Amino acid sequence: MTLIAVDAGGTRTRAAVIDRRGRLHGLGIAGPGNPTAVGREAADAAVVAALAEALAAAGTPAERIKGGAVCSAGQHDADRVRAILAGSGMSAETPVVLVGDAVGAYLAVADEPTGLALVVGTGSVAIRVEGTRIAEVFDGAGWLLGDLGSGFWLGQAVAQAVAADIDGRGPRTALTADVLARIASADVSSWGGGRHPELLQLLRHCYAAPPVELAAFAELAFAHARADSVAARIVETGAKHVAATLRAARASAPGTPIAGSGSVLIRGYLGTDAHPNVLATELADTDFRRCDDGLVGAAMLALHEAGVPRTLALREELEAAITRSRAGR
Amino acid sequence: MTLIAVDAGGTRTRAAVIDRRGRLHGLGIAGPGNPTAVGREAADAAVVAALAEALAAAGTPAERIKGGAVCSAGQHDADRVRAILAGSGMSAETPVVLVGDAVGAYLAVADEPTGLALVVGTGSVAIRVEGTRIAEVFDGAGWLLGDLGSGFWLGQAVAQAVAADIDGRGPRTALTADVLARIASADVSSWGGGRHPELLQLLRHCYAAPPVELAAFAELAFAHARADSVAARIVETGAKHVAATLRAARASAPGTPIAGSGSVLIRGYLGTDAHPNVLATELADTDFRRCDDGLVGAAMLALHEAGVPRTLALREELEAAITRSRAGR
Repeated sequence: MTLIAVDAGGTRTRAAVIDRRGRLHGLGIAGPGNPTAVGREAADAAVVAALAEALAAAGTPAERIKGGAVCSAGQHDADRVRAILAGSGMSAETPVVLVGDAVGAYLAVADEPTGLALVVGTGSVAIRVEGTRIAEVFDGAGWLLGDLGSGFWLGQAVAQAVAADIDGRGPRTALTADVLARIASADVSSWGGGRHPELLQLLRHCYAAPPVELAAFAELAFAHARADSVAARIVETGAKHVAATLRAARASAPGTPIAGSGSVLIRGYLGTDAHPNVLATELADTDFRRCDDGLVGAAMLALHEAGVPRTLALREELEAAITRSRAGR
Repeated sequence: MTLIAVDAGGTRTRAAVIDRRGRLHGLGIAGPGNPTAVGREAADAAVVAALAEALAAAGTPAERIKGGAVCSAGQHDADRVRAILAGSGMSAETPVVLVGDAVGAYLAVADEPTGLALVVGTGSVAIRVEGTRIAEVFDGAGWLLGDLGSGFWLGQAVAQAVAADIDGRGPRTALTADVLARIASADVSSWGGGRHPELLQLLRHCYAAPPVELAAFAELAFAHARADSVAARIVETGAKHVAATLRAARASAPGTPIAGSGSVLIRGYLGTDAHPNVLATELADTDFRRCDDGLVGAAMLALHEAGVPRTLALREELEAAITRSRAGR
């Protein structure tokens, strides 16, 4: 029995063709697959490309696929994903489950029936997993109503601090020069009078793009946190928000494993040279497990849906195979 | 010489037909004229309706208008406003200046050549006025990058606090019941599992509308500030932000008059039964002048543009005429 697994993330999309013993037959890699970040068309195209490559590498015709699982960051539309898969040549009746990347992160590192996952990338969310399903969601309320401490939240805080530096409402910060260096200068002469030219550039740049693109500034907060008090304050406040999300999740399932993933969590708040923060402290005495490969979780879910029991041995087999294949590329 | 003055605000739009001695010949009132809040079409229609009523009341054919001024909240497009005026029958060559409502607020209450205006409604901005022009802008950076402490900012903080109450990340707050009572319940069964139903309702409601509509929740923060610590904290933080904006503006022109307007400033932070806040304290020892009628400022600007010197007597004449006319309706 041949199955597919797809991990559509904010940085790249990967697909695997596997069998029921956890053996890897083919792997495919494509660009970002988060529709919230790159738009539906590009995200869909990435899923198609990664899947096509994996099927080609496995030498498996798409119509032989008997089932699968897709773990994705952002808001994928289940019907659209099924249409994509049908477009790849798979039968429309092939059962493929679609879950958020937080579920994939949990299944990639834990076999316990109940546990938590914390994912902080462009967004920020914690979930409690029961079996292979989401039992409860904490934050993940999106850029307008939540995702507190996320990449978007940090990037917006950076942009707001720069705006306040420029017009004198807030303290000077090293963030300003870095942010201004990243935005293209444009003709702002038709805008209203009395505006500071640098602030006009920033307004023009940020309002021309979807709000979530502010997440691009998040890394500047971490980069400056050691030497700049404004950046340090942003990181500390963000860490407090994510810690509150984690605490609410932990209260719902004390003592269970916590899977962690997302670039802002792993390379930011928990980065090796990170500014000390309350989130790192909060995680110190927990059963925290870093998820390095959501594709393993997607594969575990595909197998589970096909009736294969989840075991540590199976997970280790998949992890080793995917790691080997990745190293060979 | 006959002139027009228009004050297009978030609550209503008013137009006046005046002569060079500051006498009022006709007044017109229509609905909200802030394009950022109600959309361009509705805002444009309000300007047309108010102007038509004022011209009819004055018995003045539009082609006799020799000039005028339009003060507007939000981002009106100067070319569009001129097209609207031409559509009302005015000659395309008639000089009409278009300025932000903060300028109107200043000119309505001050004759000094240099001074400040602070306007906090859906947005939040301070300006320094030199003559009749904006010399410098503080905040007013919009809902994504600034407008800190504004109606949008407060409403977003309320919605975020409610989201955090519902999923246990934040403290319980009386805001939750009020916010949930205001949003229509809808079918959310197709959304992902594990979400608290009330939070789903909130997400669905807020993401379906333009972000600035969150400003509708701002009044709840003030209403609960005395009895609810979450609401009190939101108002205090908002007041700190507006105070920082004001401080930056004051540093640019110490000791000058400060015109204040906007429902969030006047009825919120400075409301008669307002929770004590740092903004009220900051304004206590300044030459603060509350602007009750931006139309007076628009009329002063129209006269100035027509070469009539700004004097206190002229301003008092206009104010009295407009107040009388308003009382008679």
